[in-house]
Amino acid sequence: MGSAGAEAVIPLAAVVGILFALWQWFVVSRVKISGFYQSLGTSNGYHGGPVFEMDRTEEDAVEGSPDERVIMAKCAEIQHAISVGANSFLFTQYKYLSVFMTFFAVVIFLFLGSVNSFSTKTQPCTYTQNQSCKSALANAFFTTIAFLLGAFTSVFSGYLGMKIATYANARTTLEAQKDIGTAFKIAYRSGAVMGFLLASSGLLVLYISINLFKVYYGDDWEGLFEAITGYGLGGSSVALFGRVGGGIYTKAADVGADLVGKVEMDIPEDDPRNPAVIADNVGDNVGDIAGMGSDLFGSYAEATCAALYVASISSFGTNHNFSAILYPLLISAMGIIVCLFTTLFATDFLKIKAISDISRVLKLQLLISTVLMTAGIAVVTFAALPKSFTIFNFSNLKHVKNWQLFLCVSIGLWAGLVIGYTTEFYTSNAYSPVRDVADSCRTGAATNVIFGLALGYKSTIIPSFALAASIYTSFRLASIYGVAMAALGMLSTVATGLSIDAYGPISDNAGGIAEMAGMSQEVRQRTDALDAAGNTTAAIGKGFAIGSAALVSLALFGAYVSRAGIASIDVLDPRVFAGMMVGSMLPYWFSAMTMKSVGTAALKMVEEVRRQFNTIPGLMEGRTKPDYASCVRISTDASLKKMVPAGFLVMASPLFAGTFFGVEALAGLLAGALVSGVQVAISASNSGGAWDNAKKYIEAGASDHAKSLGPKGSDAHKAAVIGDTVGDPLKDTSGPSINILIKLMAVESLVFAPFFAEHGGLVFK
Amino acid sequence: MGSAGAEAVIPLAAVVGILFALWQWFVVSRVKISGFYQSLGTSNGYHGGPVFEMDRTEEDAVEGSPDERVIMAKCAEIQHAISVGANSFLFTQYKYLSVFMTFFAVVIFLFLGSVNSFSTKTQPCTYTQNQSCKSALANAFFTTIAFLLGAFTSVFSGYLGMKIATYANARTTLEAQKDIGTAFKIAYRSGAVMGFLLASSGLLVLYISINLFKVYYGDDWEGLFEAITGYGLGGSSVALFGRVGGGIYTKAADVGADLVGKVEMDIPEDDPRNPAVIADNVGDNVGDIAGMGSDLFGSYAEATCAALYVASISSFGTNHNFSAILYPLLISAMGIIVCLFTTLFATDFLKIKAISDISRVLKLQLLISTVLMTAGIAVVTFAALPKSFTIFNFSNLKHVKNWQLFLCVSIGLWAGLVIGYTTEFYTSNAYSPVRDVADSCRTGAATNVIFGLALGYKSTIIPSFALAASIYTSFRLASIYGVAMAALGMLSTVATGLSIDAYGPISDNAGGIAEMAGMSQEVRQRTDALDAAGNTTAAIGKGFAIGSAALVSLALFGAYVSRAGIASIDVLDPRVFAGMMVGSMLPYWFSAMTMKSVGTAALKMVEEVRRQFNTIPGLMEGRTKPDYASCVRISTDASLKKMVPAGFLVMASPLFAGTFFGVEALAGLLAGALVSGVQVAISASNSGGAWDNAKKYIEAGASDHAKSLGPKGSDAHKAAVIGDTVGDPLKDTSGPSINILIKLMAVESLVFAPFFAEHGGLVFK
Repeated sequence: MGSAGAEAVIPLAAVVGILFALWQWFVVSRVKISGFYQSLGTSNGYHGGPVFEMDRTEEDAVEGSPDERVIMAKCAEIQHAISVGANSFLFTQYKYLSVFMTFFAVVIFLFLGSVNSFSTKTQPCTYTQNQSCKSALANAFFTTIAFLLGAFTSVFSGYLGMKIATYANARTTLEAQKDIGTAFKIAYRSGAVMGFLLASSGLLVLYISINLFKVYYGDDWEGLFEAITGYGLGGSSVALFGRVGGGIYTKAADVGADLVGKVEMDIPEDDPRNPAVIADNVGDNVGDIAGMGSDLFGSYAEATCAALYVASISSFGTNHNFSAILYPLLISAMGIIVCLFTTLFATDFLKIKAISDISRVLKLQLLISTVLMTAGIAVVTFAALPKSFTIFNFSNLKHVKNWQLFLCVSIGLWAGLVIGYTTEFYTSNAYSPVRDVADSCRTGAATNVIFGLALGYKSTIIPSFALAASIYTSFRLASIYGVAMAALGMLSTVATGLSIDAYGPISDNAGGIAEMAGMSQEVRQRTDALDAAGNTTAAIGKGFAIGSAALVSLALFGAYVSRAGIASIDVLDPRVFAGMMVGSMLPYWFSAMTMKSVGTAALKMVEEVRRQFNTIPGLMEGRTKPDYASCVRISTDASLKKMVPAGFLVMASPLFAGTFFGVEALAGLLAGALVSGVQVAISASNSGGAWDNAKKYIEAGASDHAKSLGPKGSDAHKAAVIGDTVGDPLKDTSGPSINILIKLMAVESLVFAPFFAEHGGLVFK
Repeated sequence: MGSAGAEAVIPLAAVVGILFALWQWFVVSRVKISGFYQSLGTSNGYHGGPVFEMDRTEEDAVEGSPDERVIMAKCAEIQHAISVGANSFLFTQYKYLSVFMTFFAVVIFLFLGSVNSFSTKTQPCTYTQNQSCKSALANAFFTTIAFLLGAFTSVFSGYLGMKIATYANARTTLEAQKDIGTAFKIAYRSGAVMGFLLASSGLLVLYISINLFKVYYGDDWEGLFEAITGYGLGGSSVALFGRVGGGIYTKAADVGADLVGKVEMDIPEDDPRNPAVIADNVGDNVGDIAGMGSDLFGSYAEATCAALYVASISSFGTNHNFSAILYPLLISAMGIIVCLFTTLFATDFLKIKAISDISRVLKLQLLISTVLMTAGIAVVTFAALPKSFTIFNFSNLKHVKNWQLFLCVSIGLWAGLVIGYTTEFYTSNAYSPVRDVADSCRTGAATNVIFGLALGYKSTIIPSFALAASIYTSFRLASIYGVAMAALGMLSTVATGLSIDAYGPISDNAGGIAEMAGMSQEVRQRTDALDAAGNTTAAIGKGFAIGSAALVSLALFGAYVSRAGIASIDVLDPRVFAGMMVGSMLPYWFSAMTMKSVGTAALKMVEEVRRQFNTIPGLMEGRTKPDYASCVRISTDASLKKMVPAGFLVMASPLFAGTFFGVEALAGLLAGALVSGVQVAISASNSGGAWDNAKKYIEAGASDHAKSLGPKGSDAHKAAVIGDTVGDPLKDTSGPSINILIKLMAVESLVFAPFFAEHGGLVFK
């Protein structure tokens, strides 16, 4: 493929992806939902219908019978309330973020500019044709621009995801009135809107940035791709705050709602009488959707940056082979096309008739996309890459053949599938691990927690081996570039991964809306089944996120080592080992902060919910409306206040270690955080997912065994609810934030590497 | 100091330590306890007194009033039952162990013998005067002998500890009738018996072994100290099975007893009506006492072996300076003397009048021993070491001055104090962390578990920094030898550490006996206070154990790298990084196994206890005796069956990694397991300790805040009991086993290093 071909294919695929997303959106939007409603919190009166009040006029244009019209209008009102809450939270959060981003942009500029004392003179370098590169000050400036661009794209991704999800949730509820298959398809299509928009826009923005930066950098590709790394840093910084803030928000509300509602007052989940129920549903959208969107976008951006940077100092860069250097973007472009075909299986080719079909179809999505993508990788590899080339391998160069790179990308892709299936096995209530956890509820909450923790620990085994195997193979074949490409292989099906991931919170919300709108038991059962599958897909999404984060971090770590000019990272260098010891502790410190934040915010939420039940007359009987807004406020305040120190810990650690203890200590810190963080993240996500589904298993009562533990309200069910509540912050706050922690520390080190190499290690000087 | 001086001082200190232990035993034994009793389970009849029956004759020689005589006789019977149970379990366990040890001894001999094809010829070497060393076969033989010796000493240590503890528990109970101070002193003296006997006998056996091996090895010190490393391996292998087996035993019983007794039947802890109560008390002795004894003995033996091996290839060895090479043993000898003085503060100089004095005195023990030992280290260092010498530093030699070695040992010692105090802060209910956890019980078990987990995570911060600082300093100053000496510095006060650690389970048992014998509320309050302090000291003991294990493992790791002939362990070698990824997972896999074992065994225990309450008429009313023996059997069977796969995982991993993936992959595995395992172990121990003391805080109700959460049986208390139960396997089974995991894998790698270097890495060949 010539460089013109590569230049054409990438934006084309991105545009096709965006069009596909818009088409899905169009299909979703054909589900009509309307009704005149008042926005939340403007009135506390109560005049009739079960809970949500509606002022309807004669001109009311809702179709169907009066009953259906009431339900539809109620759905519309609830959807509106959730959407308003999510919108307002994200805007507040982004206001905070913009302050931080501005500050950090200045830090980046000053630190990197200081490398060569803010001189505007060009620097001597190895890889350009005339042996002269742009000044360090120019690099500082463009890195800062790239950082802001990445941050903005990430904000956009998260916000868009939230918008789509809140648009789709009530529509899924309404379709669940028809049958399970239709409901599933709407939820899945909505997920696909997000998946394809994100994957495509990420690719497009990166592609455009590279081409724009190239106008200035010209021949100096090392400088160009150094500056582009800022894009990854920006993306992940936003993702971190999004994940942490959103995670605290959603779990404070969820835990608070459950503790009073389900445990004390014995009312169902998502009951409209529960004052925290709107905050809980808002949380699903700002935490799981916006957070996950930013997170995977960050991984994708970072993996691409790491690959591009290493390529720029390999033969692709020194020979100025533009189609070869765009290889990572071509893989992503192919991924969009492959995922597009894969999605058609879920939305058009396969039929869902029974509840049990759901997880089969979702699993097939993973398998189909992986098989097709393997062929796609082969096509891209043999078209875009020369037969043989050299890759930068720390102090020397490594000769690599194109089929070896095909293996690197493929092994990452298949490792992703293995991790996904393993996660499914450990978190779906179709298999024995979750059933054992459910069974342990027989003897109470303590055994449930013990079994759930043990399950999470055990679930790290196969992913660790899968990661170790793909790291070994890709590293061996093509050094750090191979690892970065393995990460991109795992992320190549990100559109599908995001689709099935976003499907989870959308279904969760759909269930909440069904309950709040007082829909029939049958509808509730269908949304519950969608939601149970969604818990598993959410866990699978987290599995992908952490697996790719591990590979991405290692690739960034390698790029950092190259850029900092370190020859080797010897474990038996005292600085490295001391760094590893501290680094392996950081995920724990961070988890302690986030879990405690959820805990204290939940305590406040509990007090507020209790207060409302005690002081608002008629609330428990469903005659009065609770004050939802005060619960929304508690979640908002807690998450904004608490995300700052946790974010600060992550952002400051590499700066502190690099500046005071030097590049070797920082390398140790990154390695320690990486290997320890992966385990903490996997075990936390899977324990949480398993507890949630163990509870759902008892509630659904679909087998004799499950019936013997239930029904809702039994002692075993109460024990299961406690496990679920413990798992909430583990699986939705601390666990998924840790993969951002390890990626972000690595990309930050990479961006600041020239500064650390020049001025770092003050303590030892 | 001449070598004759060193040769004299070491055994002298050991003998003084043993005499001191015997004196303490004599003091303890003056508390008379007697009564005619039947051993447990021989009768099921019931003829009077609350539960334990006694056939007394007219000639009954017990002093005091008839009431006191009844109580004393009951104490004697319970003590006897516990002692018989512990004895029988340990004997069965040791029977299993002897099979394993024999098998593994053969493996060692065959693997090491094969290095040079079982040739009996001498080998060329660098460090002896005539450049010729003993054959690999001789090393294989002596390593095997050392392995068996280490295993035997470890068995002896564990058994002795159990004997002392079961001897002392009832005596502590009886003294608690007088006042808190007297009871504390008896418990502490009993702990001291164990501490001093273990520290002294460990030193003595090692000293004698070295001198006996020297008869054969003569000038070949490298071979001599290579063979001696087998001693550490033997010690830690036994410790592993002791910890895992004992840990499963004790927690299956404890969890089972609590789940039915405290949660379902609402009877107090240690109530004699609970069928699992004897098994629970037996467990304290076989798990905490015997396990911890073997564990710290193992650390001590391994640290010494690592130091000796490195010294043998440094100038101490090449110059044949015997007093210098015995430096590690001299430090330990000085430690015994220092701890002897320190103990007098607790038993004689300081007075305990109120409950609050206990933790002050225990904390003072740590401080006094650390301050005195710092002076002791200075004395030994400047007397035994030349002013300047060289230390083997991988591929080169490092010039070291004696004051630098003083710093290495001291920093380890003080890091131990920091870790100890941090642990106390996070696990004692005198401070805010545990009180916050207790407060979170207000909103139920879920928040309690969330807060407790967060506390455990947070408690890793300071220990990680303390370890990083001591690793950096000691490594920098004197390479691997410095790290080994820092480990020995931390372990130099092991006699005091073991004393305060053994004090915990003894007090726990004393409380159990008081409850079972139906003693007054006042006595129970005193034993509860002793026990609460004991939970903290147990956590401190675990802190020391894990801190020293981290340093020991690193030292062994360094020795392994030296012996395997690897020049550097580059994190960015694909084999190393893949090894790190898998290694960091191993503590999780291992924890999953042990926690699940406790969980399933506890489920069986619950069923048995429920069965007895349902089928034995009059049990709940206290008119019939439960069948304690069947519960003892369940714990025994579960622990023996489940310790095998967990032990196999630990023992087989390094052999597998080294044989198939080579020395680099194994190095990565060790590094990953080390940094990740330290965090898992610290957080698990401290979460567990905090939950236990949060529960005790509510039960004691000593402040307005505590009273508002209590009393026993309140909702908050029930939530606290669930947290305590979750913490049981974390703090007493998986947590403390992990430090053995990391040490054992390291020492095993060291012992098998010549084999791996010669025949390892089959997959890559």
